[in-house]
Amino acid sequence: MGEAEKRDGEQPALHDVAILGGGAAGYAAAIYAGRARLSTLLVDGMGGGGQLNVIDQIENYPGFPEPISGPDLQEAMRKQAERFGVAVTFDQIEKVEPWEGGVTLAGAYGSYRARALLVATGAHHRELGVPGEERLKGRGVSYCATCDGNFFKDQRVVVVGGGDTAVKDAIYLSRLVRKLTLIHRRDKLRAEKVMQEKLLSLPNVEPRWDSVVEEVRGEGKVTGVRLKHVKTGAPSELEADGVFVFIGVLPNTALLRGVVELDPAGYVKTDVGMRTSHPHIFAAGDVRSRSVKQIAAAVGDGVTAMLNIQELLDSETPPRELPVVRS
Amino acid sequence: MGEAEKRDGEQPALHDVAILGGGAAGYAAAIYAGRARLSTLLVDGMGGGGQLNVIDQIENYPGFPEPISGPDLQEAMRKQAERFGVAVTFDQIEKVEPWEGGVTLAGAYGSYRARALLVATGAHHRELGVPGEERLKGRGVSYCATCDGNFFKDQRVVVVGGGDTAVKDAIYLSRLVRKLTLIHRRDKLRAEKVMQEKLLSLPNVEPRWDSVVEEVRGEGKVTGVRLKHVKTGAPSELEADGVFVFIGVLPNTALLRGVVELDPAGYVKTDVGMRTSHPHIFAAGDVRSRSVKQIAAAVGDGVTAMLNIQELLDSETPPRELPVVRS
Repeated sequence: MGEAEKRDGEQPALHDVAILGGGAAGYAAAIYAGRARLSTLLVDGMGGGGQLNVIDQIENYPGFPEPISGPDLQEAMRKQAERFGVAVTFDQIEKVEPWEGGVTLAGAYGSYRARALLVATGAHHRELGVPGEERLKGRGVSYCATCDGNFFKDQRVVVVGGGDTAVKDAIYLSRLVRKLTLIHRRDKLRAEKVMQEKLLSLPNVEPRWDSVVEEVRGEGKVTGVRLKHVKTGAPSELEADGVFVFIGVLPNTALLRGVVELDPAGYVKTDVGMRTSHPHIFAAGDVRSRSVKQIAAAVGDGVTAMLNIQELLDSETPPRELPVVRS
Repeated sequence: MGEAEKRDGEQPALHDVAILGGGAAGYAAAIYAGRARLSTLLVDGMGGGGQLNVIDQIENYPGFPEPISGPDLQEAMRKQAERFGVAVTFDQIEKVEPWEGGVTLAGAYGSYRARALLVATGAHHRELGVPGEERLKGRGVSYCATCDGNFFKDQRVVVVGGGDTAVKDAIYLSRLVRKLTLIHRRDKLRAEKVMQEKLLSLPNVEPRWDSVVEEVRGEGKVTGVRLKHVKTGAPSELEADGVFVFIGVLPNTALLRGVVELDPAGYVKTDVGMRTSHPHIFAAGDVRSRSVKQIAAAVGDGVTAMLNIQELLDSETPPRELPVVRS
């Protein structure tokens, strides 16, 4: 624990800003906070690194003409933030308590206080939960068309899902791949009608209705899937080089229920300046409502949020107990 | 001219998307457009590269723990976009003409058509227009506190200006520098009262009222400024390591008047998805209203815009004259 700050009979130190989440949005914000000489604490979850950690190759983060791995990009951002004096702590935050003029975070290992909080806890993809999926992640199993589609140029892929995102992402993939098989557990799609029609009219797209994936197959990389027909129970096999799973994305906002306003899907509502419904809480990256869920967009959000946090802090008189701790 | 497309008696080729501007927002969008296999034309102004071109060292673009120069970052993004098949053309666009289902750009060297247009033309800083300013840009003369403040740690700087941005940026700089002299041509500031009071109460900030900069001095780097008192005409000298000029930023939107809705300062109004008032025109980066004017934010904007352009194109039937040109 870098900085377990709870001391007996004492309030934890008051930082200018706490950042919750060690992904792209969190570190981008941290770089700006450090450079602005705000006393800054970044609290990363116990594993660390968010979704960046599981990305094998990133081709679309601007500035890197050669692909970079997720962990390498995260490491670069962390170094950059630490260079400007940002303290990074690993803890599992269990409660966010706002008070007038700031926020207290209660974690498994310590409590932390800050005048402003940036929520950058991201989102996670719903998984199939079938054999082979975990083992073949980044080796043919993907949850992001925009990120990984390009690695399957002229190959055969399977798309699992039937909602708006699944269909939109399948249309995207259809332009890249040779053959796309859409696997859906019902006999029709839930997505918007015009998008459905577009997808199903494409020459290289074929639907498999009433079917579910029972297993992702392959040794070092995906070679296919085993399917089951949900009505007849009949098994079948399908060869494929990639499996794209688009069955939902869930925001990491359990901590924020009742604290800030969320949209119906559970994402944090913000304005274009990343302000939430609480004046001292901001949100950036995949966790915010209407994010396009890309590294570059998360980075932009983080920077925008931190500049607006800075403006907020400059426009306010700090709580009486100042001076705050300089990290 | 990479691609002068006007042919006698023929319409110019129809691209999926045209991007106007070769800065961070434009190239970030281009990378995504190329990867989505959209036929994409990026039109850069005759000089090329936007504001990136004049930045000596960038410390705050996430992913680069060691500083990178503006031209190097731009070159990296250009390579990345070209790797995905984006065509780059240099031309001076003189007119933007929207029609139903697309946009025509009339340039000095050719005309271009696309189903969607992304405006990423940026903004430019108003300059003092005094001797020494041009020569010492990037050598002590700066127009961006967030970008360059950190290079003046514990040094003496001069800030020129009196509006909201000048005062906000001066407060930011005051945390970094040893001594800050605020030079303003009037005897009081225009900025918001609470921010004024905050700035003028800081121990290391000193105002010089009724004064203008007549010259920026220094050989290889800034060593000071020559001032004139506007009421008495009396000259004076002030030693300084840096000169920050905050006298206004102007959006590059002359082409867009009457085409899309602009805010009172001339920036393009967009929603959080970078959509303008015209359904086929999007805007990203410094040119859009309420941008925080940072490279990382421009990159995020560009990516967000292009994903939404892609969704628009996928949801529409292309104009009858398809197939479009594949670049």
